[in-house]
Amino acid sequence: MESSQTLLKLTEELQKLPGIGKKTAERLVYFLLKAGKKEAQSLALRLNELAEKVILCKICGGITEANPCAICSSSARDKSMICVVEQPLDIAIFERTNRFQGLYHVLMGTLSPLEGVGPESLRIDELVERVKDGKVKEVILATNPTMDGEATSLYISKQIKEFGVRTTRIARGVPVGSDLEFVDEITLMKSLEGRQDI
Amino acid sequence: MESSQTLLKLTEELQKLPGIGKKTAERLVYFLLKAGKKEAQSLALRLNELAEKVILCKICGGITEANPCAICSSSARDKSMICVVEQPLDIAIFERTNRFQGLYHVLMGTLSPLEGVGPESLRIDELVERVKDGKVKEVILATNPTMDGEATSLYISKQIKEFGVRTTRIARGVPVGSDLEFVDEITLMKSLEGRQDI
Repeated sequence: MESSQTLLKLTEELQKLPGIGKKTAERLVYFLLKAGKKEAQSLALRLNELAEKVILCKICGGITEANPCAICSSSARDKSMICVVEQPLDIAIFERTNRFQGLYHVLMGTLSPLEGVGPESLRIDELVERVKDGKVKEVILATNPTMDGEATSLYISKQIKEFGVRTTRIARGVPVGSDLEFVDEITLMKSLEGRQDI
Repeated sequence: MESSQTLLKLTEELQKLPGIGKKTAERLVYFLLKAGKKEAQSLALRLNELAEKVILCKICGGITEANPCAICSSSARDKSMICVVEQPLDIAIFERTNRFQGLYHVLMGTLSPLEGVGPESLRIDELVERVKDGKVKEVILATNPTMDGEATSLYISKQIKEFGVRTTRIARGVPVGSDLEFVDEITLMKSLEGRQDI
């Protein structure tokens, strides 16, 4: 292949990524051209590693060695609850608490229209499919307490409403061990709204 | 390497690219995870092709098979003129006119502070080096007639001013064969400013 064809093909390939248009793709190609062989090659190496080594569970989307993953195929887990998280690594964070006995569902990010991430880019359809069969009683939305995370949770709750499943959002409030002085107002407001009897 | 390490390493690698922060890098990784093996692998393939097949001329930065390239090493070219372009492919566009007999210099993009492209990301230092030796009489700035292109040209003209070289900018005006009706006002203004006696 001709050199200019190589540039063109790489530009096209980069444009498939969300939020990367023609202009940005060209900029990345120039950067890589100028940065030299090593830069492009080490990025290629990592991409191949991703393709070869990382297996995602076909049910929950978590990182796994077997498929379905140990959690999805365990008979000890409560199959009536699904905890929805943004990324595969969030599962490990919840597992560390040893408190949640249900299943997970990884979205692979949050909605972000400006960055070109719409509902079809996330694993929302797959969640709807899981909820449809009627065995799921509760969906816990555990996306990050950010603007994007909240918007994504809201969107999902609307999508699964019709199936009559209980939909909850993890509590937002003051973090345990912190000082009220350093807590922002919105968090404080949420901690008042979510106050509980003791 | 563990799967989560693989994700982390790829995220780090992506963050080396201009305009890509942690958040965007993570988004790209999730996209690639969800898109499946093929997507990541074909991007890796193109990156390796870039590293292996595309050779840049060490003088002008154009795409070449020999180094220095045919233009830079030709005795028939006028070595007192350098035409500065944004990208390697621009050289071919000028060559097609058969009118320019000088040398070229590829910047590899334009300045774009918001995207993380500063002067050090472009081949500006290399241009200054070429101008320094005193053989160059004129530098023609042929960046695109866009905001970024104009700003980049202005920046370069300031950098090479001290060497007493003539610095020119390609004319901006109405494109030959077009209809005035479809020409924007800024172009029309430029065409008035640059009017010539006939």
